Amino acid sequence: MKVELISIGDELLIGQTVNTNATWLGREFAQRGASVNYTTVIRDTKEDILHAVDVAFSRVDVIVVTGGLGPTKDDITKYTLCEYFNTELVLNEEVLARVRGYFEARGREMLDTNIKQAEMPKSARVLRNDLGTASGMWFDHEGKVLISLPGVPYEMKHLMMEHAFPLLSEKFPIKSLYHRTLQTQGIGESYIAERIEDVETDIRNRGFGLAYLPSSSQVRLRVSSEHAEENEQIIESYFRQIEERLPEYVYGRENDRLSEVIGRWMIENGKTVGTVESCTGGSIAADLVSVPGSSAYFMGSMVTYSYDLKSKLVGVNMEDIETQGAVSETVVRQMAEGGRKALDVDYCIAASGIAGPGGGMPEKPVGTVWIGISGPNGTFAKKFLFGDNRERNILRTVQTALNLLRCEVMNIRKKEEIDH
Amino acid sequence: MKVELISIGDELLIGQTVNTNATWLGREFAQRGASVNYTTVIRDTKEDILHAVDVAFSRVDVIVVTGGLGPTKDDITKYTLCEYFNTELVLNEEVLARVRGYFEARGREMLDTNIKQAEMPKSARVLRNDLGTASGMWFDHEGKVLISLPGVPYEMKHLMMEHAFPLLSEKFPIKSLYHRTLQTQGIGESYIAERIEDVETDIRNRGFGLAYLPSSSQVRLRVSSEHAEENEQIIESYFRQIEERLPEYVYGRENDRLSEVIGRWMIENGKTVGTVESCTGGSIAADLVSVPGSSAYFMGSMVTYSYDLKSKLVGVNMEDIETQGAVSETVVRQMAEGGRKALDVDYCIAASGIAGPGGGMPEKPVGTVWIGISGPNGTFAKKFLFGDNRERNILRTVQTALNLLRCEVMNIRKKEEIDH
Repeated sequence: MKVELISIGDELLIGQTVNTNATWLGREFAQRGASVNYTTVIRDTKEDILHAVDVAFSRVDVIVVTGGLGPTKDDITKYTLCEYFNTELVLNEEVLARVRGYFEARGREMLDTNIKQAEMPKSARVLRNDLGTASGMWFDHEGKVLISLPGVPYEMKHLMMEHAFPLLSEKFPIKSLYHRTLQTQGIGESYIAERIEDVETDIRNRGFGLAYLPSSSQVRLRVSSEHAEENEQIIESYFRQIEERLPEYVYGRENDRLSEVIGRWMIENGKTVGTVESCTGGSIAADLVSVPGSSAYFMGSMVTYSYDLKSKLVGVNMEDIETQGAVSETVVRQMAEGGRKALDVDYCIAASGIAGPGGGMPEKPVGTVWIGISGPNGTFAKKFLFGDNRERNILRTVQTALNLLRCEVMNIRKKEEIDH
Repeated sequence: MKVELISIGDELLIGQTVNTNATWLGREFAQRGASVNYTTVIRDTKEDILHAVDVAFSRVDVIVVTGGLGPTKDDITKYTLCEYFNTELVLNEEVLARVRGYFEARGREMLDTNIKQAEMPKSARVLRNDLGTASGMWFDHEGKVLISLPGVPYEMKHLMMEHAFPLLSEKFPIKSLYHRTLQTQGIGESYIAERIEDVETDIRNRGFGLAYLPSSSQVRLRVSSEHAEENEQIIESYFRQIEERLPEYVYGRENDRLSEVIGRWMIENGKTVGTVESCTGGSIAADLVSVPGSSAYFMGSMVTYSYDLKSKLVGVNMEDIETQGAVSETVVRQMAEGGRKALDVDYCIAASGIAGPGGGMPEKPVGTVWIGISGPNGTFAKKFLFGDNRERNILRTVQTALNLLRCEVMNIRKKEEIDH
């Protein structure tokens, strides 16, 4: 089963919206052993929609079209698909009742434009949307399928999971395809490649694919193969070899995030964690909290952005801030230790740095960040020099801090320092 | 000038990576008055690259290819483009010297794979990469252009800004195209459409495009037209009409974020802000801190995730937590008031809710969130009922809280409540 995603919307082409729908769909199809071969983004004009659907039917079996099903006048997908499939709109009473119920449940008035959303193409199978007013549509066409869904991510996901994927798995027997991923933090791709060169050669000699996927301070290694069952253990043994060689960098598998890995450890070991943050402004805490169930081990944080709050809330010595600066080993150690006490946690992460674009000094340029960890075995702090982009510096600080905590709690010592 | 973006990488198709490069490029081209007509995502196989380049040359003038230029064996773009343009690789001494310098400056050893990165196609113009080891390439081809860039976002952006955009503006005289955007929060698109129906009709009657772009709890309204200069004021007057009609929802223009709008107000009025967060775990603070220069008005935050810290750090009455629950008006008001004192700020935002997936109760289902604001004019709190998705609940809480603060400081009273 070959798949093409067609995302409709000027907002995607002019960069106002990130195409997260394509990301989610790609992942879900891959997990089901199907491959998305093309993703095409087009404008919401009739001509471009008709052209893109034509091209897609020429090269794939399944087309998933997202976007352009809203109630407003700029939404033309339903009308254009009626033209393509040579069918007409008819009022669907079941959809109408559901849309009406949607508004009643929310105590809101139903608008005329919403009634129009209950008109569906005669030849389409209607996919019931329980989360919104735009229904999905399934068109059978010469043994192939086109699925049209609203562009709002959670409605699209709901329609795929509840209706489209089950129907697709009935229609297309899916061939086995297999991806496995190893997650690393803090080491660049060419350094990984150098240090696992022999393992990489073995992997490729077996006919497996190996890809390095860098992003910010993380690199994912993805191994791909056909025939999942028989290769699962082989790939796992390669992953173990790489992990043993790079224990301070390899932190997980598949879609693991550092905050999840830390969360699992905290729960298993009955420990708690908190943060005291300056340049990251709460982003380390927010990453820890993004994990469901984090209330079991994450107690709280203090964002001490001003000098005063560093002193008042966590007891950093004001003289040290004045003489050594807020971005210094002394201060970040006091933040970690003071936070551990004030938050009453087993482990406290502290971060203080110059995220930029302003605030750099000759001896402390933008991108200078001190990260401290305080725990049952004492306190340590390390200095990092990231780049000159505020957003990226914050993200790197979050990832680096979480990986430092991971290494500390798992008792992994960094053998050497490799800057990313 | 028509543009196609070709993003190479299985990681995009299987959904491991979000295609933020396409977003950024789309925005930058749009700002320069050029339109990206197609974005195509393909696998990193020779056949797919050759095919996609062929298709793209048939329909656009400029192709920007991103990805596949790294030092590892899975990166095949450079070799494939050599084949397409029928040229060969030659060692480029200047690039070699730069790559060598890149490693020396970082005190790292240069690897053999990095030397290969100094081999460039003979017929290409080399675009100098100061931020990494993969150079960009510019191929002239029958009056059209193909630009090949590394997929790492900040290297790609650097190469576009420093080299590709200047060269493109020399080669193609750019036709005027114009997009303007109004940002709203807290109101659904069909409600906006109903309340501005007459304005929308006027806009369309003038031949302008109008699009509603919903995402999470925000909807952007985008008006598009040709001939920027003469239409700028006309569009601005439509925007003012909409703003006057929906003051509690319209918060900005273009790529404004709520945290930026708030930041500008705080600076202009010499006020300060802080947050006390529970379910958002620091995300409101992180959003405020993401704005450069936020240290002028953002003082700090407390993430009081546990009951104990709510009581200990901001003085919430433990009895109230026990009798009314942490997600209650009483508690969130105490968080806001206590935080205002403890952080010594003019305005304090507080949020306490059930983000999910666990923790829901019959009278307080998942998605129940109380938001409080304490400021010079007193304290108020409001209850919201979002959905059942943790990530989305956190994001909506952040946006809703920031908009509540905006309305409070700007003295905008909500005329009514329209749930999103």
